[in-house]
Order: sequence, then structure tokens, then C-alpha cells
Amino acid sequence: MLLLTLDLLGIAVFAVAGGLLAVRQRLDIVGIVTLATVSGLGGGWIRDVLIGQIPPTALADWRYLAVPLVAAGLVFVWHPQFSRVDPMINVLDAFGLGLFCVAGTLKAVDHGLGPLPAALLGVVTAVGGGMLRDVLSGRVPSIMSKGQLYAVPAMLGAAIAAVGFSATDLSTSVVAVPAATIAIVVRLLAIWRGWTAPTPGSVRS
Amino acid sequence: MLLLTLDLLGIAVFAVAGGLLAVRQRLDIVGIVTLATVSGLGGGWIRDVLIGQIPPTALADWRYLAVPLVAAGLVFVWHPQFSRVDPMINVLDAFGLGLFCVAGTLKAVDHGLGPLPAALLGVVTAVGGGMLRDVLSGRVPSIMSKGQLYAVPAMLGAAIAAVGFSATDLSTSVVAVPAATIAIVVRLLAIWRGWTAPTPGSVRS
Amino acid sequence: MLLLTLDLLGIAVFAVAGGLLAVRQRLDIVGIVTLATVSGLGGGWIRDVLIGQIPPTALADWRYLAVPLVAAGLVFVWHPQFSRVDPMINVLDAFGLGLFCVAGTLKAVDHGLGPLPAALLGVVTAVGGGMLRDVLSGRVPSIMSKGQLYAVPAMLGAAIAAVGFSATDLSTSVVAVPAATIAIVVRLLAIWRGWTAPTPGSVRS
Repeated sequence: MLLLTLDLLGIAVFAVAGGLLAVRQRLDIVGIVTLATVSGLGGGWIRDVLIGQIPPTALADWRYLAVPLVAAGLVFVWHPQFSRVDPMINVLDAFGLGLFCVAGTLKAVDHGLGPLPAALLGVVTAVGGGMLRDVLSGRVPSIMSKGQLYAVPAMLGAAIAAVGFSATDLSTSVVAVPAATIAIVVRLLAIWRGWTAPTPGSVRS
Repeated sequence: MLLLTLDLLGIAVFAVAGGLLAVRQRLDIVGIVTLATVSGLGGGWIRDVLIGQIPPTALADWRYLAVPLVAAGLVFVWHPQFSRVDPMINVLDAFGLGLFCVAGTLKAVDHGLGPLPAALLGVVTAVGGGMLRDVLSGRVPSIMSKGQLYAVPAMLGAAIAAVGFSATDLSTSVVAVPAATIAIVVRLLAIWRGWTAPTPGSVRS
Repeated sequence: MLLLTLDLLGIAVFAVAGGLLAVRQRLDIVGIVTLATVSGLGGGWIRDVLIGQIPPTALADWRYLAVPLVAAGLVFVWHPQFSRVDPMINVLDAFGLGLFCVAGTLKAVDHGLGPLPAALLGVVTAVGGGMLRDVLSGRVPSIMSKGQLYAVPAMLGAAIAAVGFSATDLSTSVVAVPAATIAIVVRLLAIWRGWTAPTPGSVRS
């Protein structure tokens, strides 16, 4: 029950961020609903299809679908208010990121995948929705190019979770809580201190 | 047999529209074949993967694959003629839209999904191919941003079909015919009267 | 063992090409890893999901995942050297193309698909990773529009392989070697002689 609540909360935050991007790109209500849904649920859909959890949980269970629809409606009406609390959304988004990378890894391990694939799927769960959102809105996915570290904290959390779940006898929460916490803290530090990912050296184009 | 014929007809119309877009974007024969195939079959592929109908019907059955290939060939040779009847293609496209949103919903209900997920998959069936086509041709999917109502009629038809198939004892055709008709009529009215989807209020960018 | 080695070699070449594109687009290390992985493994993932091989081989087996990660690391450090041998990468890429279109077709036939769907999936295996890479980097997939024949050699190889595997009693290698060779030779000739795919006649935009 706690897990479901956290999951839906993470989806809601991602959906609001996706809906706000749609507003900024001057899309209509269909665009807002589409980007909110894809942002909130897309990562989980990709993961579930790849591990064979078909139909995906976030498709078969109407509560998962209702969250981005409600989020899209709220953004449509109150987007000026949401835009004003943009920094707070970034902080909430960090919690969604930490939660999703660990939950995605756990689900993949439960489906019998080894640590490396499981960690990859944890990262996909956390960042896949945002990548789909960016592709649908005609942008190069922001995680690949600019701004503060985003995928790297998810990789850290997923890697710790994958090793902890696969190679130790520790209980789920003993692994999950520190893994998610590390991802969240690194993400928040990256926002606060402006950390970016390394880029390659001089480029001849 | 009637259903198969209608299905293939809808695919053909979508494939021709996709091929014409490729011509307008000055793509080569590979681009025309790709966009025709993706436009005609993409929505059904996404739906089938998400409901666990694997391999997708439109992949395992060669007749489904042959239709967009033939459509691409016809567009390659006769695209000036097709472009001239563009308005007629819009009307045929409306029939494809109405047919696909209802057929997709029915298939999802048959696979055990509830009304909300089934309606979503009906919409994906109807508009997914067009979204893939737009993404592959480097454009923001047109359903999200401009022009006359497109996704909304599909949502209407899918919602009516989902409730009818899930919550009533009515026979398939008693639900399907009115649901598809409403989607088609609303889409045609939207073209005729220039109806658009609501956009959010003043935006600070 | 030979097959696995060839497979991993093809993935490595595709991954290096994807990583170099990321460098040229000034993406960061996350972008390089993402484009290298998607370029090397994306085509196989799409094929495996569509034929029901879930989880995809290239996800469950850590060796497949390790190859693009290593390739991305090498590109990050030595991209000037790699860029200098660009023509050689094109030649290696032709071998990857020929290998993948035949291997993908064979896998689809083994999963019970008919010749036309199997050939399509062979082509998807060969060009799907590159299409995903182009979409993620904000470009119209290059196979659809410009440069020397790329998808057409893959289609040739896949078509020969599909007929050979489905309709004859010949042993696998008796079909696979000539089919792959033809794809490779046609691709190399296209590079050498500048062959392009036909484009439609005069266009009114």
C-alpha cells in the first residue's frame, strides 16, 4: 500500500512536469494529456514489455492511468500556479527518479534478470518516460546533453540496488532505502551545485 | 471477412496518407515504404505488444504487410494524382479512424482489460501509427498541436465502445456500429466546421 | 561460438558509429552511452519483442550489454582516432548490416513467421538500431532520405534469406553465407559507386 502510494506519487510528479512542457510548447489539451501520460507511465511500459510483464501493470490497473489524466487536467487549468513552483517540482522529480530507478531494478531482478540488465531496466524506468516525452515534443532527450546530472544518479541508485538485490541476502527495504536515498541525494546535489556529466574532449565536426 | 476487408481498407488509407507525407518531405522510396508501413500498421503493433498478442496479427499475416507495400508503390508512381484528391483522403481517413478506435478497444476488452485501459488502447490503435510516422519524419505529432480535432473523436468512439463492450450485454455490432459512427461523424464535422481542441490559457514561456 | 563472436562484432561496430554521432552532436557521456547502446542493440530488441523472445537475448545476456558500454568508453576517450578511420567504420558497418539482416530473418523464421514478415524483421534488425539512434538525436532517420543505398542491401539479403530458410531444405549456412555476402557486396558497391535509392518524380509542396 505504501509502495503503491509512492509509485502513484512519482507518476503524478512526472506527469505534471510533462504536462507543463506541453503547455510551454503551446500544445493543446490532447498534447497535454499525451505528454503527461507518456512522462508518467512510459518508462514503466518499456520496462514491463522488455521483461515480459504484459499487459504492463500501469496499463491494466486503472488507478495508474487515472493519475496522469488528473494531472493533465490540473495542469490545463492551473499551469501558471504550477510554473511558479517549478523549483519545487524539480525537487519532487528527484524523489520520483530515486524511487523509480530502484523499483524498476527490483522488478527486473524479480523477473529473473541478472544485475547488469536489471540495473539498465531500472534506469530505463526512471528516465524512459522523459525520453519518450522529449522525442514526442521534437527535442533531443535532455538527459543526453544538457543541464545537471540526471541519468547518472539513476545509474548509481540502480547499480547499488542491482548488486544488493542480486548478490546479497539483505531484505528488500534494507537495500532499497539506501539505494533510492543515494540517487535522490546525488540528484539534489547536482541541482544545487550545478554538477554536469563529462563531455568528450575537442571535437572536429 | 467483412471485418478483415474493412481493416485492410483502413490500413490502406493510412498508408497512402503516410506515403504522401514522405513524398512531400522529399524522402526516397525507402522513406515512402517506411512511412506507409508505419502509418498503416504501427498503431496495431503497439496495441498488440501491450496486450500480449505477440507476434502482432499485422505482422504474422502477410496480407496486412502487403497492403502498405502496394500503397507505397502506388504513391511512388501516382503521387500527383493522390495529392489532387487530398480532401477525399481526409474523408477516408476519418473512416479509418472510427473503425480502428472501435476495433482496437474491442480487441483489448477481449484480452481481459478493463474499460479505461481498453479505451486508451483503442485510441492508440487509431492514432499511434500517425504519431510514429510524425516522429520518424522529424515532426511533433500533429494530433498534439494543430488542425482540426483528431484524437478527440477517437477518444469518444473508444470510450463509448469500451463502456458498451465491458458493461453491457449488447452484441458486438450493436455497440460497434454506433461508436464508430459517432467517431466518424465528429471527425467529419471537425474538418467541415474547423473545430479544434482547447488550448491552455495565457502562457508565460 | 563463431555466431556469437560475429554478432558481438557487429554490435560493436554499430555502437562505435552511434557513439561517434553522439560526439559530433556534442552530447555528454550519457548521450554517448545511450546512442551507442541503442545503435548496437535497438534493432534486436524491437525484433525480439515483436516475435515474442522476451526478455530479448541482448538484454538478458550481460555480454551483449557490455559491448556497447565498452564501445562508448573507447569512443569517449579516443574519438579523434575513431573519426580518422571513418571510412573503415563504413566498411565494417556493411558487414554488420549483412550479418544482422540474415541473422534477424533466421531468428524470425525459427519463431514460425512466414517469409514476408521474417524478411521485414531481418531488415528491422539491421536498420532499427540506426533509426532509433537518429530519432533520439533529433534527425530524420538517414536510411529514409539520403546517402548511398543502405536499407536496400539489407532488404535484398533478408529476402534471399527468407526464401532460402522458408522454402528450401538447404542447410542454414548454405543459405546464410550467400545472402549475407550479397547484402555486404551491394552495400559496399553502393558506397563505392554512390548508388542511391530512387526518389519520386516532381513534387508539388
